[in-house]
Amino acid sequence: MEQRISLITLGVRDMARCAAFYDALGWQREETPDGMVVYDLPGQSLGLYSLESLANDLGIPADRLGHGAMTLSHNVRDKADVAPLVERMRAAGGEVLREAHDIFWGGHIAYVADPEGHVWEICWNPFAPLSPDGAFRWTGYGDPA
Amino acid sequence: MEQRISLITLGVRDMARCAAFYDALGWQREETPDGMVVYDLPGQSLGLYSLESLANDLGIPADRLGHGAMTLSHNVRDKADVAPLVERMRAAGGEVLREAHDIFWGGHIAYVADPEGHVWEICWNPFAPLSPDGAFRWTGYGDPA
Repeated sequence: MEQRISLITLGVRDMARCAAFYDALGWQREETPDGMVVYDLPGQSLGLYSLESLANDLGIPADRLGHGAMTLSHNVRDKADVAPLVERMRAAGGEVLREAHDIFWGGHIAYVADPEGHVWEICWNPFAPLSPDGAFRWTGYGDPA
Repeated sequence: MEQRISLITLGVRDMARCAAFYDALGWQREETPDGMVVYDLPGQSLGLYSLESLANDLGIPADRLGHGAMTLSHNVRDKADVAPLVERMRAAGGEVLREAHDIFWGGHIAYVADPEGHVWEICWNPFAPLSPDGAFRWTGYGDPA
């Protein structure tokens, strides 16, 4: 199995409200059929899809969908980039679970839930600098900060 | 906010069992501190992390972590690639939620949960061919199948 993820699907109850959150961050939607909202990311896509339809597609009760906990991290280039992005997400309708703070391993992070409860970590990791085009890998690109 | 995801973190109760699943798919781990397992993907990483630690980091009860439903899709190049990958995931300890089947929009998909319930879609999408290096985007690369 190739080591990659093609599409991340977020199960959503109120599509307009959830899509408005990502739109408000400045993300560009793709043209899609009614009832889906898709944002292309580098090499993969993020899709918003009805929670009920997703459960139906999977053939499981909707309340089982929450079982596998996941978070999505968006890493930024500078420590000072974390707090303003948190503000932007709050203004867009996100729920700030934890404000920007230093963490024991040397990073600076915050947690924000989108309007449907999908948790984003906003992270500055001085040991794993992003590539010029924003790619992340565990050991980072170039010299640590 | 740049339109990208750096890290996908899976909250995990039984780390050895869950990591064994991804290892059994042939994925390569990075060197990490005790208690974390990381697989680098193109431009991002997938991390396995203690569910309890994740909830603690977020400052929320662990049972809230399941609220934001998400699935991860792995798209393959040929329709005939879906079923064998499902078998490999089953052999690795995955729970097949839905066997490979044709779906109304023309794709061929299956759903498999990892040992901790994170749901993967295995998908052949004839309208969105992958790039030669496996990248996905909504409109696909090259000519549809």
